[in-house]
Amino acid sequence: MILDLKKIFENSNKYIDKKVTVQGWIRNHRKQKSFGFIDFSDGTHQTHLQIVYDDTIPSFKDIAKLHIGSAITVTGNIIKSPKEGQPVEMQACEVILEGDCSEDFPIQPKRHTREFLRDFAYLRPRTNLFSAVFRVRSKVAYAIHKYFQDKGYVYFNSPLITASDCEGAGEMFRVTSLDLDNINGKVDYSKDLFSKPTSLTVSGQLNAESWAMCYKKVYTFGPTFRAENSNTKTHANEFWMVEPEIAFCDLNQDMDIMEDLLKYIVKYTLENCKEEIEFFDKFVENGLIDKLNKLVNSKFIRIDHDEVIKILKEADVKWEFEPEYGEDIAKEHEKYITEYFDGPVFIKNWPKDIKAFYMKQNEDGKTVAAVDLEIPGVGELMGGSQRENDYEKLESRMDELGMNKEELDWYLDLRKYGGCVHSGFGMGFERLLMYLTGVENIRDVIPYPRTPNNCKY
Amino acid sequence: MILDLKKIFENSNKYIDKKVTVQGWIRNHRKQKSFGFIDFSDGTHQTHLQIVYDDTIPSFKDIAKLHIGSAITVTGNIIKSPKEGQPVEMQACEVILEGDCSEDFPIQPKRHTREFLRDFAYLRPRTNLFSAVFRVRSKVAYAIHKYFQDKGYVYFNSPLITASDCEGAGEMFRVTSLDLDNINGKVDYSKDLFSKPTSLTVSGQLNAESWAMCYKKVYTFGPTFRAENSNTKTHANEFWMVEPEIAFCDLNQDMDIMEDLLKYIVKYTLENCKEEIEFFDKFVENGLIDKLNKLVNSKFIRIDHDEVIKILKEADVKWEFEPEYGEDIAKEHEKYITEYFDGPVFIKNWPKDIKAFYMKQNEDGKTVAAVDLEIPGVGELMGGSQRENDYEKLESRMDELGMNKEELDWYLDLRKYGGCVHSGFGMGFERLLMYLTGVENIRDVIPYPRTPNNCKY
Repeated sequence: MILDLKKIFENSNKYIDKKVTVQGWIRNHRKQKSFGFIDFSDGTHQTHLQIVYDDTIPSFKDIAKLHIGSAITVTGNIIKSPKEGQPVEMQACEVILEGDCSEDFPIQPKRHTREFLRDFAYLRPRTNLFSAVFRVRSKVAYAIHKYFQDKGYVYFNSPLITASDCEGAGEMFRVTSLDLDNINGKVDYSKDLFSKPTSLTVSGQLNAESWAMCYKKVYTFGPTFRAENSNTKTHANEFWMVEPEIAFCDLNQDMDIMEDLLKYIVKYTLENCKEEIEFFDKFVENGLIDKLNKLVNSKFIRIDHDEVIKILKEADVKWEFEPEYGEDIAKEHEKYITEYFDGPVFIKNWPKDIKAFYMKQNEDGKTVAAVDLEIPGVGELMGGSQRENDYEKLESRMDELGMNKEELDWYLDLRKYGGCVHSGFGMGFERLLMYLTGVENIRDVIPYPRTPNNCKY
Repeated sequence: MILDLKKIFENSNKYIDKKVTVQGWIRNHRKQKSFGFIDFSDGTHQTHLQIVYDDTIPSFKDIAKLHIGSAITVTGNIIKSPKEGQPVEMQACEVILEGDCSEDFPIQPKRHTREFLRDFAYLRPRTNLFSAVFRVRSKVAYAIHKYFQDKGYVYFNSPLITASDCEGAGEMFRVTSLDLDNINGKVDYSKDLFSKPTSLTVSGQLNAESWAMCYKKVYTFGPTFRAENSNTKTHANEFWMVEPEIAFCDLNQDMDIMEDLLKYIVKYTLENCKEEIEFFDKFVENGLIDKLNKLVNSKFIRIDHDEVIKILKEADVKWEFEPEYGEDIAKEHEKYITEYFDGPVFIKNWPKDIKAFYMKQNEDGKTVAAVDLEIPGVGELMGGSQRENDYEKLESRMDELGMNKEELDWYLDLRKYGGCVHSGFGMGFERLLMYLTGVENIRDVIPYPRTPNNCKY
């Protein structure tokens, strides 16, 4: 019976004194004269299995020679472990080498820096930290699908190649079927596959709105791109976004959903990634578990942008950037306001001029029904808005901003054909993962990150 | 109490004689002198709700003026329906117009051709056919995640922007941060964001293999791209692929997983998309339900490529393309062989020269451990292989094909660092959807399809 370590560790009593087979990799190997210990992992569980073997096995000498990193199949008896911190271990009867590992294997059983491991992106999940990070990434992705599907949302795959350049959320990569080295002067788009300039999408929202106008509740979950030359801990040029869009939903209901979704994900992670979260709490961010539990039990504050500015202005703090009515807020302000309320804060009704064209214009003529969710220790985790559903207002805003309306005629028409109050929001998947794991650099929560000058593997 | 139609129809007895509120759109509207019928949908269920109103409602005259396509909120009593084919209907007490619909709304309650509707991709889910197609798309996507997650697979997001041009599965789109109209002569890649030529991926497999060498069982599910200028019913330039990769798994076990996955998805769809599948069976592909049930209960045949050629050669058929040992098979051959066995057929051990470099070379020196799954009425639905895990054999194959080994040094190194027998396969998500729905054109199962000369919305 071949078993995953996950099965064994989740029900270890069931397997005690049973003979089972496991398949995986040697993470560490300590040999003595007449016995040895193999630290074994198959990637299905955070905990490794300790495999003990001794010279009563005929192939003892061969086993003792096995290299760290090798792939093996081991059959043996699961026994209660005398060692603390592991419920069971395995007494090996047979060890078969499935694939040897060269001695220049870069992942040796010692502490490697995260910078070093970034250069070995294809091997780094074989460390405890990254093994945990990417198992959590997988489970959290599933939690997001499960949340929406259980509530009857329709999953919508927004197109990634787009001819629209006015999504307005950042610089775009160009996509072409032409040979770049054969472009001389003006591009002849009649020879490009789509016969027009195309780019990689920065957001699936506008398309998702069209689906919401039929299915009522939809969500995207897919990759998005920014061509920005930003070398920060929180920027990548390719990342995954979750973008729900809900008809018959105003800004308040939108915030209800944002809060409910985040609490669901955190609870799901605490319950389904217990060992990984304990690992992060111990080795990555002390207090992580308390932080997550606190979030689940907190009531998110809802406050207008101008009231936030008032609090910031009244604060006895020497700001690097002076807070101003009508302007965006800086990282230091986000930090202050979440500490001020000691919890997550929805900042809503933002100055119209610093927000996107599609946001619902409030009656004051100055603000839009936009909201940012600020989380202690992280800053902005989600951003959403009620969408402008008045055709004339949307059109005149696009005119004000000098946008190409022809390209978005269909988007405008959604307001003409049974448009209704609707809202949505976006959540950067990697930013969420950084919050859940305590890992501080976005490069460390993406399997193969794409950042300026970095497109290896 | 605001309810989704899904809730009401899935448990209609519970709501009889209850007052509820629904929100959605008018699909059709028939008015008489003292009463009227609204055909109402909120996109959560295939069945529409018939809403009856009469002149005892104060706003009767306003309601009677409501246009097809408008968004409305309706409160009323759920009652047993006298009409056949619908368990319940609603007797309206109040109808609120949430968003009017212009009379030039293209989706009128009559039969539109699929070609016509393709031009209105942003509105077409408001028809019965497309409403069903994209609800099924969402549920089948979830079924795929659920299948793998329940079995302990790790979901892996393969990068979409890649610097590798040797994935070998087709023409690639180029990606650049440069202004195409300012490229004069030779491209200066030092000014491109990644400082080298980059493209959109055609497959996540090679990267997925690295994850399998740590997590044992992984899967991708994401978009892939082909820059091919193919205008057929089955080609799109942007489509979604599922690519599982499994360590300690040979070709036979790979086929076990392929068969199990497909049967799971079909069963899931029959159980969870009952109304949609009935609709397709009635209006799109007669016999669809029988076809799907037959698949679930069939034993998939496994046969070598050269035996298939033998059967084809012995067949009393005048071929357009003569079947030959050592060569690929044509559509007509695929069709014959699934009819010959009256069921799904795994064709395995293909001639090495017509298959990809990474496939396991068999001992005969002529074939590789590759497999295509042929399905009656569809042709190839999945393709997989055992991967070459012998460093020297893989390297010499890459040399034979004149490939750039430096770019794939990491991929070769996976064979050096605890590589083991492993296999995987790919399944085109849209091809699967065409099989499940009976819809014959890939443009009709992708929300916003990208095909040559077509990148609208």
